[in-house]
Amino acid sequence: MIFEVLILGNSSATPVYKRYPTAQLINHNQQLFLVDCGEGTQHRLVQHGIKTNKIQHIFISHLHGDHYFGLAGLLSSMNLAGRERPLTVYGPKGLKEILDMHFLYAQSTIKYPLRFIETDPEKPALLLDTKEIKVQSFPLKHRIPCTGFRFDEKEKKPNLIKEKIEELQIPVGQLAEIKNGGDYIDTAGRIFTHEELTHPTPKLRSYAFCSDTRADDSYIPFIKNVSLLYHEATFLDELKDRAEITLHTTALEAGEVAAAAQAGKLLIGHYSSRYKEFEPFLEEARSVFTNTELTVEGSSYSI
Amino acid sequence: MIFEVLILGNSSATPVYKRYPTAQLINHNQQLFLVDCGEGTQHRLVQHGIKTNKIQHIFISHLHGDHYFGLAGLLSSMNLAGRERPLTVYGPKGLKEILDMHFLYAQSTIKYPLRFIETDPEKPALLLDTKEIKVQSFPLKHRIPCTGFRFDEKEKKPNLIKEKIEELQIPVGQLAEIKNGGDYIDTAGRIFTHEELTHPTPKLRSYAFCSDTRADDSYIPFIKNVSLLYHEATFLDELKDRAEITLHTTALEAGEVAAAAQAGKLLIGHYSSRYKEFEPFLEEARSVFTNTELTVEGSSYSI
Repeated sequence: MIFEVLILGNSSATPVYKRYPTAQLINHNQQLFLVDCGEGTQHRLVQHGIKTNKIQHIFISHLHGDHYFGLAGLLSSMNLAGRERPLTVYGPKGLKEILDMHFLYAQSTIKYPLRFIETDPEKPALLLDTKEIKVQSFPLKHRIPCTGFRFDEKEKKPNLIKEKIEELQIPVGQLAEIKNGGDYIDTAGRIFTHEELTHPTPKLRSYAFCSDTRADDSYIPFIKNVSLLYHEATFLDELKDRAEITLHTTALEAGEVAAAAQAGKLLIGHYSSRYKEFEPFLEEARSVFTNTELTVEGSSYSI
Repeated sequence: MIFEVLILGNSSATPVYKRYPTAQLINHNQQLFLVDCGEGTQHRLVQHGIKTNKIQHIFISHLHGDHYFGLAGLLSSMNLAGRERPLTVYGPKGLKEILDMHFLYAQSTIKYPLRFIETDPEKPALLLDTKEIKVQSFPLKHRIPCTGFRFDEKEKKPNLIKEKIEELQIPVGQLAEIKNGGDYIDTAGRIFTHEELTHPTPKLRSYAFCSDTRADDSYIPFIKNVSLLYHEATFLDELKDRAEITLHTTALEAGEVAAAAQAGKLLIGHYSSRYKEFEPFLEEARSVFTNTELTVEGSSYSI
């Protein structure tokens, strides 16, 4: 089952030739989730041939322009395209007010069901809970209210081993219990364990998105043991002072966060526009967390 | 003296691969004016190597997203880049309110002097009057308040023919009068006309920008005799019904407007995303106004 993240943009605020501000598209079993929506995101989606109608949930970390200035355009274009499918946008206080004002002056009526859920910058919250996945927000440490997002696959009931079920002629009425973890005892009193009768379920995967933030212990519990951690790394450690002042993170610190969270793998991005080369970011993060990769715009990463 | 318009984007609302929404950069003698600012405009400016610090006036025709969703990002990036130079934004009621709300939630303080001038969608108005150029807004006919903009070079006093002045030993005290149109009478009573003593001034050039509008007689007086007219041509005439409903113009009608205004030349753009080929637009407009050209994104047109 597919679970991957496509990096639509990984640049920080100032525009750079051929680099786009933050936006990521998460695909879990063909369910698409957009995380942040910097200016130009709808254009990037078109370039990647992605049907925006397939996106039903958009998560916005905070209200700095490089993380959401593409949202009004995307929502408007969905409207022009005749979208009917509901859309839910999760973001900080103010986001709905801003978008409503755009629509008001454009005299636009959004014709598809558009729902806003306000995120809580103070404590973690469950935003979405489907049969297959759950999404939580958690507080980050930035200059304005800002949250990260964590996507966790939900535990699925194991599939029964069809041949065993037939061989033992287990009555249909007992199958649900076995799927739920129960054993089976046949008429002769023999015990067949749950494990014997079911296929092992694949390991549950998870993804955490740490948008703009000062590296901090406070959010480690919320990203603990995540399979793939995206963490911003705006500066190299030589500019740690600047990271402290602007409430951002250095590549070295991103590696330390990943280590503390015991993440499976670390992806870094949101490089400041002052940098032309990103290998030094990789080296720095890998010096404390080996399994690190740079995000490259237009590339997908398996979770 | 340079007077040209660079087409940064000429597409209508729905995003299209490799086409950008409306934005134009007018260069008059190295003074840069931005007209409309669709999403991605700041990125386009970077791609064209244009220093945004050189832009001191931005004109927004109306509050449909494809004409201004790039403005908040551009103003924010100017701030991040440490801009100190004043900037004036001219646009409809609501624009300042929307941008102020963006800055409020981003907790951003714009550090350069940023002034808003509200345009009047009901009657023409002089927006800017410098030594070299004046800019007027005029009402268009769109679904929401919308104005066009007209740029007119200002008359310059002619340069004196240095050799003549020296030959006749005209006293310095009389030169200003000659420049202002006066003749010169020497001590012998001979008359030397203004025309004999000055270089002819170059023909005054003008540019008019007709953003989204239904083709209409009402604004012809404001674009009369313009050297170069940009007029939207969203549809081909086969979709005239659609143009009427959406308050847009067909290529044929754009040609008719140019003819009625006795424009020197017509540029068309804002093609609907349904079209892949634009030659039919050109043919249609040329059938009524020969001196027509298609706008091509990234191209400059001399005024």
